[in-house]
Amino acid sequence: MIYDVITLFPEIIEGYCSQSITKRGIEKDVITVNTHNPRDFSKDKHKRVDDTPYGGGDGMVLMCQPIFDCYNSIDKKENFEFIMLTPQGEKFSQKIAKELSQKEQIILLCGHYEGFDERIRIGLSPREISIGDFVLTGGELPALVLIDSISRNIENYLGCDKCADIDSFSEGLEGYLEYPHYTKPREYNGMKVPDVLLSGNHQEIEAFRKAQSLERTKLRRPDLLN
Amino acid sequence: MIYDVITLFPEIIEGYCSQSITKRGIEKDVITVNTHNPRDFSKDKHKRVDDTPYGGGDGMVLMCQPIFDCYNSIDKKENFEFIMLTPQGEKFSQKIAKELSQKEQIILLCGHYEGFDERIRIGLSPREISIGDFVLTGGELPALVLIDSISRNIENYLGCDKCADIDSFSEGLEGYLEYPHYTKPREYNGMKVPDVLLSGNHQEIEAFRKAQSLERTKLRRPDLLN
Repeated sequence: MIYDVITLFPEIIEGYCSQSITKRGIEKDVITVNTHNPRDFSKDKHKRVDDTPYGGGDGMVLMCQPIFDCYNSIDKKENFEFIMLTPQGEKFSQKIAKELSQKEQIILLCGHYEGFDERIRIGLSPREISIGDFVLTGGELPALVLIDSISRNIENYLGCDKCADIDSFSEGLEGYLEYPHYTKPREYNGMKVPDVLLSGNHQEIEAFRKAQSLERTKLRRPDLLN
Repeated sequence: MIYDVITLFPEIIEGYCSQSITKRGIEKDVITVNTHNPRDFSKDKHKRVDDTPYGGGDGMVLMCQPIFDCYNSIDKKENFEFIMLTPQGEKFSQKIAKELSQKEQIILLCGHYEGFDERIRIGLSPREISIGDFVLTGGELPALVLIDSISRNIENYLGCDKCADIDSFSEGLEGYLEYPHYTKPREYNGMKVPDVLLSGNHQEIEAFRKAQSLERTKLRRPDLLN
């Protein structure tokens, strides 16, 4: 999978990708992460990429030309997806992460400041994706969320092949919350591990976990059961 | 605002916070971001912080002792909030960001691997927050999302005092999506800026923007109108 990230802050993307599991994914050649800075495509002598909004108002708006030229400079694979990170987009989910993991290339456009000139939407027709109903400074954190979440569904990315399927929102019981986990010691600060988990009876353990998973989902996320 | 982030990957937090607006917020002394690594509190000779799950299964579970001791080592201000980042938590939103911006200190606990020993939840009673229904490698990106989103609501964090109120999900029309923005040039690749924005008639411009904002919300996020 090739990720091409269009961003005014490539250091944020590169910094994160030099850490932990993303770093290993790049070293194993399972993913590639490139950054492209629209500022490098500015035709303005001060390398400006934004300007004031027509009609007035606070904040600066990202201009068409540097974004169009930056986007057009990227080599496109046959099976690519172009995504704009924006709070106005469709809500990102595990389902979309799995779907996107089948692509060959994902181009991620990160906004900043007040937002994009509307003609970027009109002219480049990106798929618009939001990670949630909150305001962030830019699209870099959402882009990293997508890179992490999508990559976990790509073969050989995780050390353990089954790991992607056993976390919350991803396990066989699609959409159920995870059951509680316990590890050593058997007792900590007076709190004990439930006896059933120490029983060695795999059927009972499975039944306990399913029940806990269902109960937790009912309590916390009844919407997932509908 | 003081953020204390409990994480096995402090470099991820520190790397992001040395960039862009977060860096400026720290330099202006509006926010402070500290990291605390549970590994430094491990009593194991190999500095292990995780172990296999009781009852079997893949993946490793974060142990109680390093997390409890790490949490207990942090000086608590009177008005602090302790948050665990987990896909099982309540959904983060702009409303929660604004609410949390009133705190003096926020302690953020980042998970990793298969998750936390359940007794961390039971014993430390964190407020559990999720940024969305997708699986991530750890709580670091969600922690950064919270830091960015919350900080934007703190006085003097942004260069422009009004900025926090005019973005999607934050503007006066609470919950409406933003209207489209346009900046120079008036025409790009045959696409023109709507005439009304060039009219200089502020009443008409405001009416146009409100109508666009409403129409876009109806089309993309009808749930926000209920």
